[in-house]
Amino acid sequence: MTSSAQSDLRPGSKAAIARRGLMLVLSSPSGAGKTTLSRKLLEADPMVTLSVSVTTRPPRPGEVDGRDYRFISATQFEAMRRAGDLLEYAEVFGNSYGTPRAPVEEAMASGRDVLFDIDWQGTQQLREQARSDMASIFVLPPSIAELERRLRARAQDDDAVIQRRMANAADELSHWAEYDYVVINDSIDRAFSEIRTILTAERLKRERQPGLSGYVRDLVGQL
Amino acid sequence: MTSSAQSDLRPGSKAAIARRGLMLVLSSPSGAGKTTLSRKLLEADPMVTLSVSVTTRPPRPGEVDGRDYRFISATQFEAMRRAGDLLEYAEVFGNSYGTPRAPVEEAMASGRDVLFDIDWQGTQQLREQARSDMASIFVLPPSIAELERRLRARAQDDDAVIQRRMANAADELSHWAEYDYVVINDSIDRAFSEIRTILTAERLKRERQPGLSGYVRDLVGQL
Repeated sequence: MTSSAQSDLRPGSKAAIARRGLMLVLSSPSGAGKTTLSRKLLEADPMVTLSVSVTTRPPRPGEVDGRDYRFISATQFEAMRRAGDLLEYAEVFGNSYGTPRAPVEEAMASGRDVLFDIDWQGTQQLREQARSDMASIFVLPPSIAELERRLRARAQDDDAVIQRRMANAADELSHWAEYDYVVINDSIDRAFSEIRTILTAERLKRERQPGLSGYVRDLVGQL
Repeated sequence: MTSSAQSDLRPGSKAAIARRGLMLVLSSPSGAGKTTLSRKLLEADPMVTLSVSVTTRPPRPGEVDGRDYRFISATQFEAMRRAGDLLEYAEVFGNSYGTPRAPVEEAMASGRDVLFDIDWQGTQQLREQARSDMASIFVLPPSIAELERRLRARAQDDDAVIQRRMANAADELSHWAEYDYVVINDSIDRAFSEIRTILTAERLKRERQPGLSGYVRDLVGQL
């Protein structure tokens, strides 16, 4: 067993199969429900950890530094970017967002999966570095009317922000075909169930179970 | 909607997303349980159809022609092989086995998934032709002792056949790393659940839902 692997998660399994964490990316237009889905997944599955982004935008009411984002200055952000400490970064509506590299690598090395709630720009950058360690899901809204309704339900956003987000939705939607999986969020329960199913299947991929080599070697040794 | 697609299977979905069938391959050493798992999957999921192989070996007691295999002569087999009517074929213990092409293509064209209960040789040949239409699962036994116990429980096989199968197990096991997913059959219920999870996730892959292009086009059209 190497430092990048951990015992099997399956309770009662006779074999302790070392496993390796994966990067699970959720993207969608704002308001399609990916933040709600992310929170549900984090609550339901203790082996999933959130990649907390750094951002230069100010906190919204209710957002907690270090939980929702790490809120940093533009100067700090630029220093991290130049040092190569960001796995991906992007500018959205004049603010900078980025994913610190170190916590992601630490989590995966300890066998945990890392959830990313990022847009298509971040996904494209992450894909270059993550390769087969990444599984990406695009969450589609059931309709544009529903998308707008959900955005308006966020009382803290003013109309200008909502209009900008609506305009941005078409751009985000145009990148759906770059994702491995597509889930339609017309029912939060079904969409959530589908995301969990994808994660469970991804964990059963051969490359996510590095401990199998030793397991099969032991089997063949009994012949 | 094209002839190679069908309405979404998800009941209650507002959107009818055309989908495309996939080839689901199960391989394992004899006695690891893949035949039981295949039967359970066929019973549980009406959208999964079995690829019935042709073979030149004689039927075992209880086997039904056209259900378990299509039992054909060596002359018939050779004619199919030469005509290119077999997606894959192999010789095992002196008998020929092969997968007729036409029923597989018909099933997938109507949106059904096709299950293959084949060995590593067949999987290698199928992979060349199926490419992204295929998802492959290797089923591992919990132990060699359990593998032998399961083989002995098949009363119709004599000791010589069992010994030959045991010797063959090491060869089959050596190909586990060529498969997309690996499931350990130390509990038939859990192994079955894992296989269904893999199938459900595979159906959520973007490439299996060709109807999404139109769905997203409609969404963007509303903006």
